[in-house]
Amino acid sequence: MKFRPLHDRVVVRRKEQDKTTAGGIIIPDTVEDKPQEGEILAIGQGHINDNGDVRPLDVKVGDTVLFTKWSGTEVTISGEDLMIMKESDIMGIVAA
Amino acid sequence: MKFRPLHDRVVVRRKEQDKTTAGGIIIPDTVEDKPQEGEILAIGQGHINDNGDVRPLDVKVGDTVLFTKWSGTEVTISGEDLMIMKESDIMGIVAA
Amino acid sequence: MKFRPLHDRVVVRRKEQDKTTAGGIIIPDTVEDKPQEGEILAIGQGHINDNGDVRPLDVKVGDTVLFTKWSGTEVTISGEDLMIMKESDIMGIVAA
Amino acid sequence: MKFRPLHDRVVVRRKEQDKTTAGGIIIPDTVEDKPQEGEILAIGQGHINDNGDVRPLDVKVGDTVLFTKWSGTEVTISGEDLMIMKESDIMGIVAA
Amino acid sequence: MKFRPLHDRVVVRRKEQDKTTAGGIIIPDTVEDKPQEGEILAIGQGHINDNGDVRPLDVKVGDTVLFTKWSGTEVTISGEDLMIMKESDIMGIVAA
Amino acid sequence: MKFRPLHDRVVVRRKEQDKTTAGGIIIPDTVEDKPQEGEILAIGQGHINDNGDVRPLDVKVGDTVLFTKWSGTEVTISGEDLMIMKESDIMGIVAA
Amino acid sequence: MKFRPLHDRVVVRRKEQDKTTAGGIIIPDTVEDKPQEGEILAIGQGHINDNGDVRPLDVKVGDTVLFTKWSGTEVTISGEDLMIMKESDIMGIVAA
Repeated sequence: MKFRPLHDRVVVRRKEQDKTTAGGIIIPDTVEDKPQEGEILAIGQGHINDNGDVRPLDVKVGDTVLFTKWSGTEVTISGEDLMIMKESDIMGIVAA
Repeated sequence: MKFRPLHDRVVVRRKEQDKTTAGGIIIPDTVEDKPQEGEILAIGQGHINDNGDVRPLDVKVGDTVLFTKWSGTEVTISGEDLMIMKESDIMGIVAA
Repeated sequence: MKFRPLHDRVVVRRKEQDKTTAGGIIIPDTVEDKPQEGEILAIGQGHINDNGDVRPLDVKVGDTVLFTKWSGTEVTISGEDLMIMKESDIMGIVAA
Repeated sequence: MKFRPLHDRVVVRRKEQDKTTAGGIIIPDTVEDKPQEGEILAIGQGHINDNGDVRPLDVKVGDTVLFTKWSGTEVTISGEDLMIMKESDIMGIVAA
Repeated sequence: MKFRPLHDRVVVRRKEQDKTTAGGIIIPDTVEDKPQEGEILAIGQGHINDNGDVRPLDVKVGDTVLFTKWSGTEVTISGEDLMIMKESDIMGIVAA
Repeated sequence: MKFRPLHDRVVVRRKEQDKTTAGGIIIPDTVEDKPQEGEILAIGQGHINDNGDVRPLDVKVGDTVLFTKWSGTEVTISGEDLMIMKESDIMGIVAA
Repeated sequence: MKFRPLHDRVVVRRKEQDKTTAGGIIIPDTVEDKPQEGEILAIGQGHINDNGDVRPLDVKVGDTVLFTKWSGTEVTISGEDLMIMKESDIMGIVAA
């Protein structure tokens, strides 16, 4: 990736979520306010505390993560719509 | 569970609460604003302070806990409606 | 008690306060906004600081305490209406 | 006193202030918004910092203190109307 | 002075400012919103940090200081209208 | 550059972004609310913590960075319209 | 100067900015909301942290600095209109 996030930021590619269920039912928008899945594409060097100590992040490139719909900032990098957020916006990691 | 919460977050399965009392009386919604019970399904590695020290959580998988109705975020994991919250949202543990 | 509060929380049973004075005069609601008395039924393991050090609470089970009317959360434990609050919501201890 | 304040709290008995001046002039309410005098009746064990260290208070029982009209909480202890406030609400000590 | 301020507070006697200029022009009120001068009459023992360490104040009794019009609290001590403010409300010291 | 930013501030020259796409389509303003690119022209000596320790910045002169549209302050230095922002306003570095 | 700022404050003399450009065009007020230049006339002894340690300021008397229009407080010292602000309000130093 041609972008290196600073500090405790990560770049996430949102997973397209089927708006139609297995049975063909369309999920209304209110349901979509739930947290969303995404894949980590790039991570910063870590959280930096007030003394300048660096704590590496607990997520890594390739992780599938869950984050709330309202976290992060939308960016366009190399023509692709991605998100930049802080590790603290990520609720957890979905097992492979 | 196929989801690993980050840091001081936990995954909770809300206990369905009978909306009808033993005597058959329906409990109105205002009464339901009280804290709710749930079961801990997964826990993060612990609270991380500014120096990067990890403090393990004081709740464990299987605990029945009490939390306020407004804490946490609703998520759907493997098709099941669950909640992700921080340990600080949990008021205490109900004895087995 | 079948409930163990987390950290610096305590469980309090509110003392019923006579709304009628000795002389039979009914106390209006505005007067009732004053702090209320209650009995400590259960206490958490203590206040935990950012380094993970635990400081035991300065109230103990059986203490009669004074707290402001707006502190804490109402809960129903084993069918009894009680309150969960933090030690910092308690203003002091009434001597036995 | 049958009440022991917690931590950095103190119990204060407000001094009744003459609403009539020496010359018989009635002081209007706006003037009364100025800080008020009171006597310290009981003090907590001290300010507790995040490490659990206790710093004894700088006021003692018997001190006449000045506090702003809006500080503290009104309480009734043993039938007497008193105030509970934090040491930080006290502006200073009036010399005896 | 019969009043001892607590911690980082000081007692200030506001300097009356001529509302008429040398040339006899009356200064409108909006101009008076600028910082005001006063004389330090009493000082507290110093700023106390969270560890209980005391740092003596950098102003002393007799200093002429500049403070913003909205800082501090008006008090009446021994019949004189004075102000109590924190050292952080003082912008600097006017040379003698 | 004839301007030296203080502490953790940097001077950024915003990159003009084509408002017309390769295919000749004009990008509407809402799309332009996305983060913008810029070049670092000058950096401060670093972030200073409460103990006075200096942590050098993680961006350097010449870096192309991404920042949100609302960060920083517009300035005119030597006749050129530039921006001054804090390192924390910068989301990451675009690879050369 | 007959005024000594306290701690991390500085006294600044605002530079009059030509409201007419070289070509004789009058700059409208909205453009004037940009940061302004000024000269440092006096500085405090430094920033004081919670432990009482003093960190000398990074600006010195004679420096030409850039500050936002809304920072600081207007004062009149020895009849001259000046500004008092904190070092953190200063964005940087203009090279001589």
